[in-house]
Amino acid sequence: MTDGAVAGVDLPRLRELNSLTIVRALRDHPPSTVTELSQRTGLSRPAVDLIAQNLVADGWATVIEAGTSSAVGRPARRYQFRSTAGYVLGVDVGVHKVLALVADLNGEVLHSHRAAVAADADPQARLAALDEAIEECLTATKKKPADVWAVTIGVTGPVDSSGRTSLFTPLPGWDQVDLPAHLAGRFSCPIIVENDCKLAALAERWKGAASDASDVIYVLAGMRIGAGLILDGVLRRGYGGAAGEIGALKQVRWLAAPSHLENCPGVPASVSPDDAAAWVFEAARHGDRAAKTAVSRYVKDLAVGAAALVLALDPQVVIYGGGFSRSADLVLAPLTAELQRLCLRVPEVRASTLGADSVALGAIRLALNELDNRLFSTTLSSPAAPTVR
Amino acid sequence: MTDGAVAGVDLPRLRELNSLTIVRALRDHPPSTVTELSQRTGLSRPAVDLIAQNLVADGWATVIEAGTSSAVGRPARRYQFRSTAGYVLGVDVGVHKVLALVADLNGEVLHSHRAAVAADADPQARLAALDEAIEECLTATKKKPADVWAVTIGVTGPVDSSGRTSLFTPLPGWDQVDLPAHLAGRFSCPIIVENDCKLAALAERWKGAASDASDVIYVLAGMRIGAGLILDGVLRRGYGGAAGEIGALKQVRWLAAPSHLENCPGVPASVSPDDAAAWVFEAARHGDRAAKTAVSRYVKDLAVGAAALVLALDPQVVIYGGGFSRSADLVLAPLTAELQRLCLRVPEVRASTLGADSVALGAIRLALNELDNRLFSTTLSSPAAPTVR
Repeated sequence: MTDGAVAGVDLPRLRELNSLTIVRALRDHPPSTVTELSQRTGLSRPAVDLIAQNLVADGWATVIEAGTSSAVGRPARRYQFRSTAGYVLGVDVGVHKVLALVADLNGEVLHSHRAAVAADADPQARLAALDEAIEECLTATKKKPADVWAVTIGVTGPVDSSGRTSLFTPLPGWDQVDLPAHLAGRFSCPIIVENDCKLAALAERWKGAASDASDVIYVLAGMRIGAGLILDGVLRRGYGGAAGEIGALKQVRWLAAPSHLENCPGVPASVSPDDAAAWVFEAARHGDRAAKTAVSRYVKDLAVGAAALVLALDPQVVIYGGGFSRSADLVLAPLTAELQRLCLRVPEVRASTLGADSVALGAIRLALNELDNRLFSTTLSSPAAPTVR
Repeated sequence: MTDGAVAGVDLPRLRELNSLTIVRALRDHPPSTVTELSQRTGLSRPAVDLIAQNLVADGWATVIEAGTSSAVGRPARRYQFRSTAGYVLGVDVGVHKVLALVADLNGEVLHSHRAAVAADADPQARLAALDEAIEECLTATKKKPADVWAVTIGVTGPVDSSGRTSLFTPLPGWDQVDLPAHLAGRFSCPIIVENDCKLAALAERWKGAASDASDVIYVLAGMRIGAGLILDGVLRRGYGGAAGEIGALKQVRWLAAPSHLENCPGVPASVSPDDAAAWVFEAARHGDRAAKTAVSRYVKDLAVGAAALVLALDPQVVIYGGGFSRSADLVLAPLTAELQRLCLRVPEVRASTLGADSVALGAIRLALNELDNRLFSTTLSSPAAPTVR
């Protein structure tokens, strides 16, 4: 039976799969010797040796010549993934700001730039801030657009398959903006647009409060409340990109929840509406009775929508993130108590650890996922930016 | 590089993987020739020929000697998956009945038995009905317990990892029932307990109204309303088995919805509470004003919970199933209209096509999935019941 069975094997394909195996084994680890890679992958030492040399020649790996780490005999050379072969951009286009990050292929952030935007800015002004933030990141890190292998932009509102927020957006005029077209002049690499809550969920799962969990509900809490869902470790977009939009249903009270803070009696006239919530949380911390009542009502309403998601999906963890997560000290305990009252099984409730950077960091993660799919999934491409056309 | 790379290949393992490939290629198709199997799998004809003969010797396949199908030359023999190598049982333990099905490894149902149970029956009486229904199925098909390779029992309420409905059950005393222990005396094969809504969702996706969709919300509508979720073609259980229980949240109105039917003015005293809903639907069909109002209120409340799930998950399809799906003619259009009012993106709403058998059929499907995982995933076991100890 040997001959017949082997007739089904494609040797060049096998070599490519083995190369992929070694690239993946390098990516997720510190610099490694051939012996370590052989143990990690189950491939023979001679095979690993040859593949590693080819990966260096191709530009996917670099050699670290042996130092003094080995006590006896000739110290072994180490290979590491060449994370500076390419770069990715992650940008958060919010109501008040644009935040851009540039990172290498390991997701190491090299530079960030924040540009303030007026809440009522028109699309041209917001796109100009986006362009400026990207430009600053490239200039500061001395990169050209061609060095960028993938770009992800996070926006508020559900994003359809064309990268538009046609169903709903709080950004004035943004439903008409075609971000991929706007950026296509400067970048030939993949350009992805995604909802901010979904990106923040990805970031918390990657290197934040949910890094140990596979079933996660992320709640982005601010003057608007949204959700991002991760199930079995995978971000759920929904059939039309609109998963997580339960806040649109008035019965689950997310539309009403922030108004308790906004309309709290006692907020000084000098405090802007955007800063009112922070003022109320701080006043509640100092025992102000009206502020404590407002926070309590906010949490009760927040809990109804959170309970709807918990009962629907039965997650392991709920992450309380977004701008209001700075006040998690006042929210987590009463929110958990409300969920215990409303739900059959109560997940752990945790505060976001990434705070205001979570959307842009999630954008970096999604850009890297896109590269993983294009470069490291079924074939090993040469180290260069994938092009979309 | 050839030698080094091939050193990573395990030939006996390759042969086993090729055998698995052929078993899978046989399972999903009508009887096939070696040429057809070779084309379908990419393996060479000599390899397929040898593997197919071994599968017949092992008991995984049977030969159909050539008939008159081939017009020219010697007609080719065909191989088919031996679906009668083993059997599975799927049982629906409901409030009013126990329904048991026995099926072969292709999921072909060979016999079904329905036993009536009183809604207030104690666990002993309900377990006796379960045993009787299983016994009837085995006797009618002349099978022994050892011929059964997997058993799935569907129950109402969320099922935890031990097979208990400890969080909630409407069946009297059922939170104390240990079904796997009860059946372990007679069956040594895997015994799975699962929630009824989840099983019904699986069935509709398998051979019902959702067979073309990967993102499905199934609503089991009756005097209680529950949901089963399928995302990316996979049934979502939730971290603790309690996914789909959004009906427990009073704000989404599923607890209240059926009461409009139950309390509709004009239901004759002779109609039992269990039959009241059917009476109201029928009266509404004939233009009864009070009945039409009751149905309208029912649909409005039903839509709130359905909208919460649609907004949370953005599915492709919503299936309206359960006992009340017999009245889908009165429900689908107004339910869709309500969802259009409440949701950002409205999925297609369809009536269940499997009706009262859906839970038991889903139990068959889950039992077959369990066998797929145990018998056809990474190694090819010999054709015999897997044992759990």
